[in-house]
Amino acid sequence: MILGGDGYLGWATAMHFSNRGHEVAVVDNFLRRSLLTERGADSLTPIRPLRERIDVWHEVTGKTIKFYHFDITDYRHLASAFGEFRPDTIVHYGEMPSAPYSMVDRDHAVFTQTNNVIGTLNVIWGMREVVPDAHLIKLGTMGEYGTPNIDIEEGYIEIEHKGRKDTLLFPKTPGSFYHLTKVHDSNNLHFAVRIWGLRVTDLNQGVVYGTDTDETVLDERLETRFDYDEMFGTALNRFVVQSVIGHPLTVYGKGNQTRGYLNIKDTMQCVELAAMHPSDTGEMRIYNQFTEVFSINQLAEEVVEAADHLGYSVELRSFSNPRVEAEDHYYNPTHTKLLDLGLKPQMLSETLVESMIHRVEQYKDRVNINTIPPVTKWR
Amino acid sequence: MILGGDGYLGWATAMHFSNRGHEVAVVDNFLRRSLLTERGADSLTPIRPLRERIDVWHEVTGKTIKFYHFDITDYRHLASAFGEFRPDTIVHYGEMPSAPYSMVDRDHAVFTQTNNVIGTLNVIWGMREVVPDAHLIKLGTMGEYGTPNIDIEEGYIEIEHKGRKDTLLFPKTPGSFYHLTKVHDSNNLHFAVRIWGLRVTDLNQGVVYGTDTDETVLDERLETRFDYDEMFGTALNRFVVQSVIGHPLTVYGKGNQTRGYLNIKDTMQCVELAAMHPSDTGEMRIYNQFTEVFSINQLAEEVVEAADHLGYSVELRSFSNPRVEAEDHYYNPTHTKLLDLGLKPQMLSETLVESMIHRVEQYKDRVNINTIPPVTKWR
Repeated sequence: MILGGDGYLGWATAMHFSNRGHEVAVVDNFLRRSLLTERGADSLTPIRPLRERIDVWHEVTGKTIKFYHFDITDYRHLASAFGEFRPDTIVHYGEMPSAPYSMVDRDHAVFTQTNNVIGTLNVIWGMREVVPDAHLIKLGTMGEYGTPNIDIEEGYIEIEHKGRKDTLLFPKTPGSFYHLTKVHDSNNLHFAVRIWGLRVTDLNQGVVYGTDTDETVLDERLETRFDYDEMFGTALNRFVVQSVIGHPLTVYGKGNQTRGYLNIKDTMQCVELAAMHPSDTGEMRIYNQFTEVFSINQLAEEVVEAADHLGYSVELRSFSNPRVEAEDHYYNPTHTKLLDLGLKPQMLSETLVESMIHRVEQYKDRVNINTIPPVTKWR
Repeated sequence: MILGGDGYLGWATAMHFSNRGHEVAVVDNFLRRSLLTERGADSLTPIRPLRERIDVWHEVTGKTIKFYHFDITDYRHLASAFGEFRPDTIVHYGEMPSAPYSMVDRDHAVFTQTNNVIGTLNVIWGMREVVPDAHLIKLGTMGEYGTPNIDIEEGYIEIEHKGRKDTLLFPKTPGSFYHLTKVHDSNNLHFAVRIWGLRVTDLNQGVVYGTDTDETVLDERLETRFDYDEMFGTALNRFVVQSVIGHPLTVYGKGNQTRGYLNIKDTMQCVELAAMHPSDTGEMRIYNQFTEVFSINQLAEEVVEAADHLGYSVELRSFSNPRVEAEDHYYNPTHTKLLDLGLKPQMLSETLVESMIHRVEQYKDRVNINTIPPVTKWR
C-alpha cells in the first residue's frame, strides 16, 4: 500500500511494485496537485488524472492497481483501508513535501505540521490496531540532519561520554518547519517501535532527480509528475528546466551547500530492497538513502556542461539565499546500509543530464517562468 | 504572561510574579479542569473558579491579575492578546500535561500532539509577528530524555566522533506521546531561535511535589490544584494522599525507576531566576530543573516513614507497571545551571512530608479512591 501514490515518487513506486507481481493499492487525496494549483504552478509533465493512469496501467500491462481516495489525517478511512487491503508493506510518501511551503506564514507552518505529524500518527495507530505485523517504510529526508560538524551516521550514533557509552538517535538540526515534521515523525515512530514492537524502516532520502523509471516510459500517459517551481521543484530538476528555457540557474547564495542526491530509479531500488528485507518486529532501521554528494555549484556545473554540448548557453547566477542555512560547511554522511542490501547506484553522468534535457525539451512550452525565481523567504 | 495560568504551577506562578510587583496576565481555556471531569476525577484541594481566585488575590494583596480566556491553538486570540498585553516574558505551561492521558487511544494521542505542538507553534509565530523581543520560558520535562546509559547533560552535548567535534541537541528517548510533544516543541523552538533570533529558555522540569507556595497560603481561596488520580497526579503527591486514606502506595513494577524531583516552591524560584536572567537574542538555553534524584522506592519509603511518625500504617505494594519503561537503569542527569543562577533548593525532608500529610488530611473526605489505581496501559 503506497500512501501518497499519486506523487512524483509514489506513482512510480506503485507501478514498480505492480510490475514485479505485487498486489498494489495507492492512497491519495491529491494534496500535491491542489497545492501546486494554489501557487499557480504545475507539473512540467502533463500528468493524467490518477484514475486514468491506473486504467492505462491495466491496458498496458494487464495489471491492476487499487485506489483509495482519502486523507490519511482521517483515521476512520485509513483504518478501514488497512482492514480491507491488509497490506504486508506500507510505503509512506503521504506528506506535504515542501520546505518553502512550510515557511510561508503561520497557517502554512501549522498546516504542514498538523498534516504530516497527525497523518503519520494515524498510520502508527492503524498499524497497531489493524495490521500490527505490517512493515512500514517511511520516507524521511537527509535534510533532517542539517549540517553538523561531525560525520552523519545512519540514524543512530554511539556516544562515549564521561566514561560511559550508549547508542542513541543521531541528534538532528532540521532546516524548516517541513523538515521538522520528519524529525517529529521519526521520534514518534521510534517510540511506537519501542513500546509496541512495530516494524519500521525510516529512509532519510537525499534530493531525487530524474524523469523516468522503467515503468513511466512504457506509455506517455504513465509519466510521473516533474516539478520545477521554487516551492516543489528540487535542485537538479529545476536546473535542467532553467537551462532549456534560458533562465539563469538559480544558485542560492554561495552555492557551496552540499547535499546527497539520487536518481529516481535508485529510489525505486531502495524502497524495493527495504520491502524485500523487512525490519524485524520491534526494529526501527534508519537508512541514509542517496548515492552521491554534490554542492549546488557542482550540480549547476554538470548541467551547464551537458547543456553546452547540446547547444545551450547557460548562465549560472547567485540569488540572495531565501533560506537560513550554512553556505560553507562540513558534510560527510554515511550511506552504506542500502549498498549492503544490494543497491546498484546509477550515478549522475553527462549522458543522464542530456537525456533529462531532451525529456524537458518535449514539454518546454508548458513552463511557467514566473514560478521559477525564489520568493519564499525564511526570514 | 502565564499560559496555562489556571494550573497547578501556572496559578502559583501568576501569584508569585504578581506578589513581586510584576504586571501579570494569565491565559487559560480550563482544559485541565475539563479533562479531570472527563476522567471522573478532581483536584484534592477545592480550587475556586479562576475569576474568583483573581478577585480574592486583589482583595488580599491589592494587586491585579489580568485574565484572558482562550485556547492558544486559536492563533488570532493569542496574537491579539500578545498585542494588547505586550509581555516581556511569556511563561508557557499551557499544554496537556499527562502521559497516561496521551496513551489512552488514538484520539487522546492525536489530541495531545495537536494541542501541544500547535499551541507552541502559535506561541512561536506570535512572538515572531507581535513581540519578537519577548523572552519565552517554556516548560518541558526531564521525561524527554528517557534513561540513557550516559550522563544526561542540560539540553546540549559535545560529541567527539571520528576525530571531529560538534555540540548538538542531546538525543532524547521520551516515554509517551505526551513526552514526545515536549521533544517536538523543543525541536521547533530550537529552529525558530536559529532562524529568527527569538529568546527562549527551555526548562526540562523534574516531577514537582508540594501543596503550598508563599502565596497559596495567604488565603485558602488562593490554593492551587493538587491532583492525585492515576492520570494527572504525580508520584510524591499521590503517595501522600494514598497514605492518608489507607490505600497501599502504588509502586509501578520494581520501583527502581529513578527521576529528578523538586518542590513547587523551587519551581517558583527557577522560573523567576530564568525570567530575571533572560536568554539573549538568538539563544535557546536549556536547563534541567530539579533538585534531587530519587527512585520510586526511596520516595515511597520517605512517605512510609513520615506517615508512620504520624500514626499511619502504610503498605507499599507493587502494581503491574502500566508503562513501558526501564525498571533498572543508570541515571545521572546534570543540573547545575539553575544553581549557578542562584537557586537555593528546598530539599525533601520528613518535616516537609509530614506537613504535606497534614494539608492532605484537611481534604481527605474529598478523595475519590476509584481514581487512584493505575488503569491506563502503554500496551
